[in-house]
Amino acid sequence: MPDPLPTASALCRFADAPRDTSVDASASASADASSAARYAGYVHAPDATRRAGLQAIIDAKTKPPGSLGRIESLALQIGLIQQTSRPTITRPAMLVFAGDHGIVRHGVSPYPQAVTAQMVANFIAGGAAINVFSALSGLTLEVINAGVACDLPDAAMLVNTPIGLGTRDFSEAPAMSDDEVRRAMALGAARVAHHAARGTNTIGFGEMGIGNTSAAACLMSRYCALPIDACVGRGTGLDDAGLARKRGVLAKALSHHPQQADAMATLAFFGGFEIAAMAGAFIEAAARDMIILVDGFVVTAALLAALAIAPDVRHYCVFSHVSDESGHRAMLERLAADPLLALGLRLGEGTGAALALPLVRAAAAFLCDMASFASAGIDDKAHAGERHDG
Amino acid sequence: MPDPLPTASALCRFADAPRDTSVDASASASADASSAARYAGYVHAPDATRRAGLQAIIDAKTKPPGSLGRIESLALQIGLIQQTSRPTITRPAMLVFAGDHGIVRHGVSPYPQAVTAQMVANFIAGGAAINVFSALSGLTLEVINAGVACDLPDAAMLVNTPIGLGTRDFSEAPAMSDDEVRRAMALGAARVAHHAARGTNTIGFGEMGIGNTSAAACLMSRYCALPIDACVGRGTGLDDAGLARKRGVLAKALSHHPQQADAMATLAFFGGFEIAAMAGAFIEAAARDMIILVDGFVVTAALLAALAIAPDVRHYCVFSHVSDESGHRAMLERLAADPLLALGLRLGEGTGAALALPLVRAAAAFLCDMASFASAGIDDKAHAGERHDG
Repeated sequence: MPDPLPTASALCRFADAPRDTSVDASASASADASSAARYAGYVHAPDATRRAGLQAIIDAKTKPPGSLGRIESLALQIGLIQQTSRPTITRPAMLVFAGDHGIVRHGVSPYPQAVTAQMVANFIAGGAAINVFSALSGLTLEVINAGVACDLPDAAMLVNTPIGLGTRDFSEAPAMSDDEVRRAMALGAARVAHHAARGTNTIGFGEMGIGNTSAAACLMSRYCALPIDACVGRGTGLDDAGLARKRGVLAKALSHHPQQADAMATLAFFGGFEIAAMAGAFIEAAARDMIILVDGFVVTAALLAALAIAPDVRHYCVFSHVSDESGHRAMLERLAADPLLALGLRLGEGTGAALALPLVRAAAAFLCDMASFASAGIDDKAHAGERHDG
Repeated sequence: MPDPLPTASALCRFADAPRDTSVDASASASADASSAARYAGYVHAPDATRRAGLQAIIDAKTKPPGSLGRIESLALQIGLIQQTSRPTITRPAMLVFAGDHGIVRHGVSPYPQAVTAQMVANFIAGGAAINVFSALSGLTLEVINAGVACDLPDAAMLVNTPIGLGTRDFSEAPAMSDDEVRRAMALGAARVAHHAARGTNTIGFGEMGIGNTSAAACLMSRYCALPIDACVGRGTGLDDAGLARKRGVLAKALSHHPQQADAMATLAFFGGFEIAAMAGAFIEAAARDMIILVDGFVVTAALLAALAIAPDVRHYCVFSHVSDESGHRAMLERLAADPLLALGLRLGEGTGAALALPLVRAAAAFLCDMASFASAGIDDKAHAGERHDG
């Protein structure tokens, strides 16, 4: 049996676990959560009273204090999330959200929109990088059509409940209506609730959507209050002319949207169905005290939206990697995040999160299985310093 | 069945696979390998003619070229090592070599020498970090007593064949005789051969030995031609006075050893039984076309010795992490190494190598299991640029 879900957060769902995989997103959207302020109340920071006790257990392990570096701080974080000195990773899941973006009509991507659907088909066929890495890491993989621009055939792995056939062109008007944003968030939340009900306590999110780095760059610019040039780079392989065009399109779009708008309105204006779904998924996963594996640039942009709505989501986030996609490093610095990996990835799909999961397992196993000085009969005083083979 | 060992390297062993786990190291040492020049001939670089073909296969995977960063370069390396586009990781093994060092009498470590044996007992009891991480990564763990300062009781996991009861104090004379170095190298080589005969094609080395960062710092100073102050740091938790004492002891020791001595003589002067055993293990593993997971500061010092003897060992090395131990980063820069992880580890034991193994598996799975544009029916031209969701 998986760990039971905490009752505290079970009282404050904004999306109930669906009874089957076909989510009625519009029904979920009619829930009582109609403002960012209400979402914020769903998420609470983990109780910190266990912190000193967990740190003492970590320091009593048979190693010089701090000598396992980032594994130790990760162990502390997941111990606090699960409120235990014996954390477990149960039925970890990877949810890949796909959606299309109206902004692509302005040539902000070198790829045709059709590639989004082609890559979803590749996910379903099992041939993409995220399939390979999820299988290796023991992640249950699910693909969610949050709003691809064409109809997709049903498939066992696919939750085929799009909010729309791609978003509107945000160069002139909001990409999504307020109602569409809420429905997309509810879709993401419902998928998290679905997996939580089946025992998942660790979850990662990935994405696929031609044009979604443009959406992510605008969200970053607004949520981090950074100029758009700091948020758009050459990661897409654009040449000088392409880069200048993308920056121009996005700068103009930003000029149509007031700087002081609230978090939900910003998400509606620049976001996408897959990005809003991930924002809802982040909030639901944090409300359910899950360990959340944060992937790259687009996923972190969705996290920025979630944090603008519910800041305590931050406590549940394990930053899996720093992407080569321009802007991601600045996002992580803004979040004071210490990513586990720096492998030069810029693929998306959740690949960085899948590759980082073994390190999260290592942190849990460190806490659960490593001996203490007392249990191993080693002189603790000999380890008052730093390195035992120094 | 594991992959068969390549016959080319089988012709040039300097240590035969033992028939049981009790290695007669002195018998192995009587082999015909009496100089560094002969060891060098055992190791050959992988045939590079497959490089372009492997790169083409990597570039045809369903992702923008280069977008999996370090995973792609790792896949190329292991494809070259195994001379196949379908590499496998079979029966991976972690060999932890333990030894004591006479130099500790000068107070270069804050820990008593007894901790070496206590930690070996902890390995055998299953309570150390390397036990936990090896189990998680599916590594077969073996501990080799290469020269701990006291007799150790036999145990199933322990290869209890010490070359001596700790090395001599190298502040005045060589830590080991030439014969001891050769016997220690043969011990390490024999353990690699033992595992190779059982199907291991991927191997990592770890170490335990109070005082061995002093030995490693002197080896680094000589092999990299760097001043000792660049090789010794605060990683041991020494205070200012302790650091000054350690530097003084090591500088004086270095002054007793001519700068131009050959690689084997340098290893004999400053090394340890566990370090020489690892040097032999590196050479044997490379000769057998194994993927070698390189751990932290002390293991990399052993690698420096191996490379000074047989430079082509470099091709088989996967650098698992950059340690927080002072000097390791400079070592890696000298080797033009691109480590997979940077987690602030400074424990030793092989922990970084164990934590990196999942990334090596990911690189192999990427090459074996990911679809190509042709097989997935995705327009390849759409991916001529960089990022498919750009």
